Amino acid sequence: MVARFSLVELPFTGPVEPIPADRTPLELVFAHEGGRSIRVPGFWDGDDRYLVRFAPELDGRWTWLSESETPELDGWTGSLEVGPPEAGAHGPVRVAGTFHFAHADGTPFRPVGATVYNWLHQPDERRAETVDAIAGAGFDKLRFMVFPQAGGYVEHAPELLPFERDERGRWEVTRPVIAFFRRLDRAVAELGARGIQADVLLFNAYDNGRFGLDGLTEEEDAAYLRYLVARLSAFPNVWWSLCNEFDLLDATRTDERWTRMGELLAEIDPHEHLRSIHNWVRFYDHNRPWVTHASIQLGQATEDFGRASLFRDAYRKPIVLDEIKYEGDVPERWGHLEPRQLVHQFWIATVSGCYASHGESFVRDDGSLHIVAGGPLLGESPARLGFLRRILEEVDGPGLDPIDNWWDDAFVAGIPGRLYLQYLGRRAPSSWRFRLPRASASGVLRTGDRFQVDVIDTWNMTATPIDRVFELGDVQRNEAFATDAAPLVLPAGEALALRIRRVD
Amino acid sequence: MVARFSLVELPFTGPVEPIPADRTPLELVFAHEGGRSIRVPGFWDGDDRYLVRFAPELDGRWTWLSESETPELDGWTGSLEVGPPEAGAHGPVRVAGTFHFAHADGTPFRPVGATVYNWLHQPDERRAETVDAIAGAGFDKLRFMVFPQAGGYVEHAPELLPFERDERGRWEVTRPVIAFFRRLDRAVAELGARGIQADVLLFNAYDNGRFGLDGLTEEEDAAYLRYLVARLSAFPNVWWSLCNEFDLLDATRTDERWTRMGELLAEIDPHEHLRSIHNWVRFYDHNRPWVTHASIQLGQATEDFGRASLFRDAYRKPIVLDEIKYEGDVPERWGHLEPRQLVHQFWIATVSGCYASHGESFVRDDGSLHIVAGGPLLGESPARLGFLRRILEEVDGPGLDPIDNWWDDAFVAGIPGRLYLQYLGRRAPSSWRFRLPRASASGVLRTGDRFQVDVIDTWNMTATPIDRVFELGDVQRNEAFATDAAPLVLPAGEALALRIRRVD
Repeated sequence: MVARFSLVELPFTGPVEPIPADRTPLELVFAHEGGRSIRVPGFWDGDDRYLVRFAPELDGRWTWLSESETPELDGWTGSLEVGPPEAGAHGPVRVAGTFHFAHADGTPFRPVGATVYNWLHQPDERRAETVDAIAGAGFDKLRFMVFPQAGGYVEHAPELLPFERDERGRWEVTRPVIAFFRRLDRAVAELGARGIQADVLLFNAYDNGRFGLDGLTEEEDAAYLRYLVARLSAFPNVWWSLCNEFDLLDATRTDERWTRMGELLAEIDPHEHLRSIHNWVRFYDHNRPWVTHASIQLGQATEDFGRASLFRDAYRKPIVLDEIKYEGDVPERWGHLEPRQLVHQFWIATVSGCYASHGESFVRDDGSLHIVAGGPLLGESPARLGFLRRILEEVDGPGLDPIDNWWDDAFVAGIPGRLYLQYLGRRAPSSWRFRLPRASASGVLRTGDRFQVDVIDTWNMTATPIDRVFELGDVQRNEAFATDAAPLVLPAGEALALRIRRVD
Repeated sequence: MVARFSLVELPFTGPVEPIPADRTPLELVFAHEGGRSIRVPGFWDGDDRYLVRFAPELDGRWTWLSESETPELDGWTGSLEVGPPEAGAHGPVRVAGTFHFAHADGTPFRPVGATVYNWLHQPDERRAETVDAIAGAGFDKLRFMVFPQAGGYVEHAPELLPFERDERGRWEVTRPVIAFFRRLDRAVAELGARGIQADVLLFNAYDNGRFGLDGLTEEEDAAYLRYLVARLSAFPNVWWSLCNEFDLLDATRTDERWTRMGELLAEIDPHEHLRSIHNWVRFYDHNRPWVTHASIQLGQATEDFGRASLFRDAYRKPIVLDEIKYEGDVPERWGHLEPRQLVHQFWIATVSGCYASHGESFVRDDGSLHIVAGGPLLGESPARLGFLRRILEEVDGPGLDPIDNWWDDAFVAGIPGRLYLQYLGRRAPSSWRFRLPRASASGVLRTGDRFQVDVIDTWNMTATPIDRVFELGDVQRNEAFATDAAPLVLPAGEALALRIRRVD
């Protein structure tokens, strides 16, 4: 019996002379007794060894049949009996509720992400230490690159690179380095074991001519993607990020080329993982159908209220602000946020109905940064972001949506009628008058509805229930007020939020 | 000799029994001596009269040939000799510089728009009075609807409707009411004569069951569009706005149906006018290729800095905020802006690299509003928007782009190295220190560059040159400062802007 959502690996023996990796060596067609069928590509794993990895999402009997142009790999059959998942296994994360995420079994997923670009290329102990640090802080997603980083703040030279080279030194993508990709397998599995989504950056803008991996042709890029997807797709915790800062790469990589690569990803991934592409300055068109969620860098988008939510209007997909500047002490403006400011920006993202990612850029003794090489976290923001994640996980529903984005009298996110989260920002008001926004299209609030309020201190990580019930006495077209208009006196603290929940 | 950009009307005599207007009665293929050829649809204009209207954009000899399934209209030929345009004629407005607009001859166009939805359906004198008012204030675009408005604040019942009805009272789009469309011709021409672009709202959300013009089938919508485009396309000042508040219409009008209508517009318009669609709460995907510019309603988008420019990032097209709430005194939140606030929001739109439209909603003696019925303007904002337009027309280049949208240390728009416009908002600082932002990608500023500054009072409509030259002494990665760091003492005034121009 195979557990639902777990990775099933089926080995095959093929020709001793390896099939070049730009060809799919075999495919398995898995057919479920209920009628669903899925075509899963296999991949070469060294010598005469070929693997197919599959993670079933339906319980019951699956049969399979192999198809290949290579006689030794063609025409094999078999079956699987799939039963309940292991404890804590919920399947791949996908889009839910238009702007949010949930696992395949419906369990909501609230991304609070970390960033360590060159994590894969660190020694094993450093990699483990990094996972301990980010899991300990409460992060549940990690952005890291398959191809290594060169350039500023990078001291470590990788011991493994992804492909063999030909006699002229040119990359041969048809000959993957198996040790490299097995290490990638392990890395993804290590994250999965700690409940962390692997936001895999397939290409990046930081090669700087050092490795030449940003200079592959479109056909070579495609061969690499086919190989990588066949290897990793059955890991439940994989997300595909097509490129980091895609608009920094050279002009041969047009938006149309990225679109073809993104559409290829959508076509070849049997497990339908999330797909995005991340910008430097110029945005990709996240309305393209292959893009499942917008992965955005824009320093100012979370610096004040009323901004990030506009991306929801424009894209009608989940918005993940995957670079909002980093906590640290480098001179560049992307890398010296005060921790309170970074936490503030995460809360602005939250009440904008969006998600954000963290990064840390203190210059360490070895000259590198956490966003490059990982290691222990030094900053003060991670613990507060772990606290934010706990608040998000208490939301009973797909996620927090801005209640009324049309004007800026107040920025409040929630689930209309049931839950409201208002973040008061860094102005530290001494009191707050109970008020709920109401979009004109929403008729969920009525006179007599009763609410309970928690005061959340986002920095000191406390959520304190207020011993008072607020009953709606005045429900207007766009806002509702309590019968008892006495203001709520707020404790000292510059970054308070209010969680307002319906009392049934 | 025909003047370039002028409307040429060629009349034809066809069958006495009119060809139903859902069929194009004839097309003229115009061939320019230089090789370019354009296919222009004709239309029925009553009785046995058929017209083809064409506005040539190339000087020289054009020959034409008629094609029709109707023998009387088929096979006619002729020619035109086209010469220089009349004074002030610049041709249709199209997209220029990605985010801006220019006429066909390259003359920049800076939209500062007005809104009078039911203007077409008012008596002639009222219509003329409205044009006088908006032209006098300095507006250069008018949004108005082809189909009449019903519902709140609408007292006037139109004397003309666009189609005949059948015996069951159902609209027959195959039988246009010629008097209605001749009136529309005149209306567009009246605006053109005053230098005002006609932003023609082809469909709208305000029928409210009164006329039933929002209940046509997709085929009927298409027949109406073909007829309207054939009639109006040769007017140089036409813009197509597919629908106002499209998302308020019923569920049969899916986004896919709007897309098909928009693509039809792009296909059938030989003069390639601007095309947009305007939302209520939910946005259309303005990244669709048929959309030339994003026409957006969002109350909060111009209430503060750092917002509207995000739509530039998302769409990479001109952004026209065609509803940012109105100056007036109605109780609804869309209609009681203070004039200073509306002017403030236009300036925020400007330094966000976007454009906005005005509307006025004071309740008049007859119970209507200017945005519905027109008439004289009562508010204090129009004169200030005319002033803003004059400032925009002094820009030497495609338009103002945010210099560095990445962080919010300052929001400044301009043309890097040459012109900077910084709006200081309503905070009324008493002094300003010379500083220019510098996007990391831009290397245009150098030590020793010299600049002159005008202080603009956006409310009092003055631009005062400062008798001082600022020379750059400290050019950093993302900002540049003057050698003489003494702050500029600002005059009193809550909504000042600084225009900073390079001294050559």
